Amino acid sequence: MPDDAKPMQRFTRDQIEEFMARCFAACGMPDGDAATVASLMAEADMLGKDSHGIFRLPGYIGRLKAGGFNPTPNIRIERDMAATALVDGDNGMGHLVVKTAADAAIEKAKTAGVGWVGLHHSNHAGAASVYSNMAMAHDMIGLYVAVGSANHLPPWGGTDMMLSTNPIAVSVPGDEEDAIILDMATTVTSYGKVKVYAQRGIEMPEGWMINRDGTPLTDASKSDTGFLLPIGGPKGYGLALIFGILAGTLNGATFGTNVVDMNADATSVTNTGQFYLAINISAFMDPAAFKTEVDAVIRQMRSSATMEGVDRVRLPGESSHAAYRERKTDGVPLPDPLLENLAKVADDLGVDRLD
Amino acid sequence: MPDDAKPMQRFTRDQIEEFMARCFAACGMPDGDAATVASLMAEADMLGKDSHGIFRLPGYIGRLKAGGFNPTPNIRIERDMAATALVDGDNGMGHLVVKTAADAAIEKAKTAGVGWVGLHHSNHAGAASVYSNMAMAHDMIGLYVAVGSANHLPPWGGTDMMLSTNPIAVSVPGDEEDAIILDMATTVTSYGKVKVYAQRGIEMPEGWMINRDGTPLTDASKSDTGFLLPIGGPKGYGLALIFGILAGTLNGATFGTNVVDMNADATSVTNTGQFYLAINISAFMDPAAFKTEVDAVIRQMRSSATMEGVDRVRLPGESSHAAYRERKTDGVPLPDPLLENLAKVADDLGVDRLD
Repeated sequence: MPDDAKPMQRFTRDQIEEFMARCFAACGMPDGDAATVASLMAEADMLGKDSHGIFRLPGYIGRLKAGGFNPTPNIRIERDMAATALVDGDNGMGHLVVKTAADAAIEKAKTAGVGWVGLHHSNHAGAASVYSNMAMAHDMIGLYVAVGSANHLPPWGGTDMMLSTNPIAVSVPGDEEDAIILDMATTVTSYGKVKVYAQRGIEMPEGWMINRDGTPLTDASKSDTGFLLPIGGPKGYGLALIFGILAGTLNGATFGTNVVDMNADATSVTNTGQFYLAINISAFMDPAAFKTEVDAVIRQMRSSATMEGVDRVRLPGESSHAAYRERKTDGVPLPDPLLENLAKVADDLGVDRLD
Repeated sequence: MPDDAKPMQRFTRDQIEEFMARCFAACGMPDGDAATVASLMAEADMLGKDSHGIFRLPGYIGRLKAGGFNPTPNIRIERDMAATALVDGDNGMGHLVVKTAADAAIEKAKTAGVGWVGLHHSNHAGAASVYSNMAMAHDMIGLYVAVGSANHLPPWGGTDMMLSTNPIAVSVPGDEEDAIILDMATTVTSYGKVKVYAQRGIEMPEGWMINRDGTPLTDASKSDTGFLLPIGGPKGYGLALIFGILAGTLNGATFGTNVVDMNADATSVTNTGQFYLAINISAFMDPAAFKTEVDAVIRQMRSSATMEGVDRVRLPGESSHAAYRERKTDGVPLPDPLLENLAKVADDLGVDRLD
């Protein structure tokens, strides 16, 4: 993404986290839950997921105020087996619900080898890799899949938008090397990135979206008139379909035309579906040996000769690790239009502005 | 794929299955194992997976005769938890090893909710969906991932072929509708399909492979001079990498430059890695209700308006279901060059030819 002409203001993680926590608390969320959601959102900003951190706060607050989220959910396990659970999120913020699922899946994987927890009546939970990363502290591989919160993708060959970008994130720990973190939509780009381009007035490259007549759509502000393109054509459609069934249908959550577009409808219960899979490395090999092997894989990929014009081979997650280091030192850069929105949110809620 | 000028000879499933079984038995495999592998390979042919059924017999027999496969493996569970197992395939044919994994994963999922079985010292197992389909008879969703048996893909931006197509297959049962069967390589096409094009002398479309200088490669007979393209560019690279780690590295199997190209080396132990995941639908919802919901998803996708020039929206697996019905009635069509190879195999082994 090109730099804006003027350098952006920067804020520490603590600043943005505390600001978000007081906004959520002002909407009736218990202090602990407000802090948890704020921390998970700030983590997205630290990881460079600009379209899934504090950028989402105005939308979330609007939805809380409109009654679209339950500020005091009773998140509970409905079905339970040795390695699985089905969790009812009671329409709480997705961050809380998915964290509950991640914690439960990790606990199950400790004794069962893997843990798979499905969710219904959850909500948009922000950056997928924030959750997949959680398993790594337990010497596990984390995997998270969500039904996207709005449909921007037709089935391959079709023109009716029945599918979302249905993202997947997988986190694999290395030893000396940074973890491999794959965090991707099943579309060439995510709708979140399109929204950032729209907000910043940047033109999108061809190949991200097409108009309903099949021509390229590059004006991000007109994204609602076209649709995203799946990776690999029918393959990306197939992945979006399968992920939607596993994260949505299987859990009794919405998928397909009954998905509620949370950006267009602030009050209806979305019944968002997600699932979390934790894989206990020690069920298959010694975790230390595994991490050493992952280091070797990473170094091997990096050692590849490169195509003309490519300086070096990259690993999934590199940009997130780089963002994390830079933002830990220099803070999180936030663009002026977002800061204006955040100031308005603070004033509306009667809480201190971000500073 | 275009029709050949002359109609191909057709054979019943029983004919090709019995032919393959006697070839394997003549190579020292126990009759039961020979029949099992033959049945799984014939199933691939029935599903229309022409590059992964009897087409592979000459290569497999060559490898058995050269000592590259263990004809009498001791396939055994090495590590075992409530929902997971690690299986040592003892260099047996991949079909036997993966079937063992599928059976074990399904058993575990009955009590634990999901079952994940990883494999090492396995081998090429043919068509992925043959295995993912197995879970459906138990009201489960099946998922299977393999490290491909040869590297044809560089990391994104690189030119050293360190990755394989690392395929995934997922099977989701419907009720009245045919199951959704996603069976895809993480590349735009599979190397198996390239081999079929080479054998039939058909030119490949642009976008499947590129030469080392980045130009399109369309002559399938020169496939060893270029490499396959991943779906979605860096995303397909990321998926191939993650699938390779989950199916290979995590199981102590080969992945990366230590992968043995079974087509170029008939004797070295490949130490192929795969994993099988069975998801018990009843851990999340009533299986009958789920299948009805899947029917609704399928019908919804089909109901989409279509782009110009597209007659209707298709579901993953449709072509396999169509092939199965057609071949059950009319038999499996086999091209003359393959029949000549098969006759030579039969003569070499001193068994009755296919007829």
